[in-house]
Amino acid sequence: MKVNGYAATEQNAKLTPYSYDLGELGSEDVDIKISYCGICHSDLSMINNEWGMTQYPLVPGHEIIGEVIATGNAVKNVKVGDKVGLGWMSASCMSCEQCMDGEHHLCGQSEATIVGRNGGFADMVRGHWSWAIPLPDGIDMSKAGPLLCGGITVFNPIILAGVKPTDTVGVIGIGGLGHMALKFLKYWGCEVIAFSSNPSKKDAILNMGATQVIDSTSPEELESITGKLNFILNTTNVSLDWNSFLTALAPKGKFHTVGAVLEPMAIPAFSLIMGEKTVGGSPIGSPALTKTMLDFCVRHNIYPEVEEFPMSQVNEAIEHLENGKARFRIVLKNE
Amino acid sequence: MKVNGYAATEQNAKLTPYSYDLGELGSEDVDIKISYCGICHSDLSMINNEWGMTQYPLVPGHEIIGEVIATGNAVKNVKVGDKVGLGWMSASCMSCEQCMDGEHHLCGQSEATIVGRNGGFADMVRGHWSWAIPLPDGIDMSKAGPLLCGGITVFNPIILAGVKPTDTVGVIGIGGLGHMALKFLKYWGCEVIAFSSNPSKKDAILNMGATQVIDSTSPEELESITGKLNFILNTTNVSLDWNSFLTALAPKGKFHTVGAVLEPMAIPAFSLIMGEKTVGGSPIGSPALTKTMLDFCVRHNIYPEVEEFPMSQVNEAIEHLENGKARFRIVLKNE
Repeated sequence: MKVNGYAATEQNAKLTPYSYDLGELGSEDVDIKISYCGICHSDLSMINNEWGMTQYPLVPGHEIIGEVIATGNAVKNVKVGDKVGLGWMSASCMSCEQCMDGEHHLCGQSEATIVGRNGGFADMVRGHWSWAIPLPDGIDMSKAGPLLCGGITVFNPIILAGVKPTDTVGVIGIGGLGHMALKFLKYWGCEVIAFSSNPSKKDAILNMGATQVIDSTSPEELESITGKLNFILNTTNVSLDWNSFLTALAPKGKFHTVGAVLEPMAIPAFSLIMGEKTVGGSPIGSPALTKTMLDFCVRHNIYPEVEEFPMSQVNEAIEHLENGKARFRIVLKNE
Repeated sequence: MKVNGYAATEQNAKLTPYSYDLGELGSEDVDIKISYCGICHSDLSMINNEWGMTQYPLVPGHEIIGEVIATGNAVKNVKVGDKVGLGWMSASCMSCEQCMDGEHHLCGQSEATIVGRNGGFADMVRGHWSWAIPLPDGIDMSKAGPLLCGGITVFNPIILAGVKPTDTVGVIGIGGLGHMALKFLKYWGCEVIAFSSNPSKKDAILNMGATQVIDSTSPEELESITGKLNFILNTTNVSLDWNSFLTALAPKGKFHTVGAVLEPMAIPAFSLIMGEKTVGGSPIGSPALTKTMLDFCVRHNIYPEVEEFPMSQVNEAIEHLENGKARFRIVLKNE
């Protein structure tokens, strides 16, 4: 099966048309004809080999929406013709403790869609059936792509931290991930405070459901919410004044990062101890939780704010993202 | 009411006999005739003004076991003649969100037994009725003192972290607090690994219920338990190789510190994210949980290992503790 995609052939390169063959279909694999694919910051990190694990040529893209067009003979759960989404992961071992426990995203043998594989900036992609998430009826396929990676990444922490509708919560960094977190938390019933240092986004942020926007670079504004937040979600990957945010937490509050800041976080034990606070993190989420999230999105009509580019303009789209102009997530469309 | 105690009159001083008057009994206060009082490392920190909040003369002691001998006219829950314990805290406001939520130990107005007050190295102490914890029938009063501070400090994290009997857990630092944690976790049903760098304690540690002793200064020994622990409790207040311990956690594992290390903990976000791990902390525990802990101790005959000194030998007892000779907790007895 021949695939037509767009690949980076070396570090920092523009993407160029690239054709490849997927080989024989594995018994548990599905082939997906791609309709839409979101662009995630991880795609840029992989194109630029920031994590040292890129294999070139690389076809990026892991927020995929499409239709199953072929299934191996041992595939479960999905069939040809089904509309599905495929996110950061494309396979898990299915038998380790984590997989057997429904935590396939924590499987040590799991395979990422664009690590040693080719992803969604193409007309087709292959993955294990377990990560081909069936889309609920009525979903808007043109906007759903970013939910498969960015969306589940911020939805999972809400579940892990046991966020309650009565909670006051904060989201740091209102970009591709953060803006989806605002929407989830609004429909979760929470009082939602957005931390942003970009005044040009303020109106959009309030329109998306935040109750208040706090300038995270202002010590005075941070101090005004001392002890108020039950949960803070960090979507940025830069070093922050961690103790300021711990101080903003209420007793028993939880700080959760999905942003993989490289420098170790300097966390004062005293802050954790006196308020029974925790600091945690998480990657994406399980296939089961991804399905639950999609159902929640359809119920409340929750979608990312997307800007659509044709797949053929993938380089223009990437440039738009790199320039910080995306409001708030870009989706590529196959014609 | 005149009290005879032992006070430090200045920083680092030996304790000397000291008499003082408690003044009029407040309507919600109880006076407790002291039978036993444990010695906690915090007593030494307060004698030496390590936290800059000591008021001299200071009568230390906050692991108190005794009998109620007077009650104010609005006291609830306890009456004259009741056997009670009094720990790190002696009063909370009773009306803030934390108090109304049963979390009196997180009350911002709470008063510590030896901060601006005189504690348990004396024949009598006063406190608010809410922190005079009624002792369950059948408890061994001569050993129960250390449960009121050290005990609840390590019991609370087990509850907060939701430790399950099926979990594999670790305890860092097997001293006054750590040895009680080993005993709780043994009776919790867990597989218990003790982290200690003191070979002279090994037999005692195994006798207290640890399954295995790991030398926490040995990278090889730490590596042997990679990914195995669901919960690690740190009772030391020194900087550790935090990432080694995070690596020892299983996916979704929790690292919890009750040791107030002064230097910020350098926590790699990547470790938290990839394994959905958390780092948390806590102080003592609520009055309700302290009562629950005492019931659990009586049910299973769980007590600290104590060495008893007469109250009059308080300075010898403190020296014994400072020299690292305590096995594992010292209790002072009033004759």
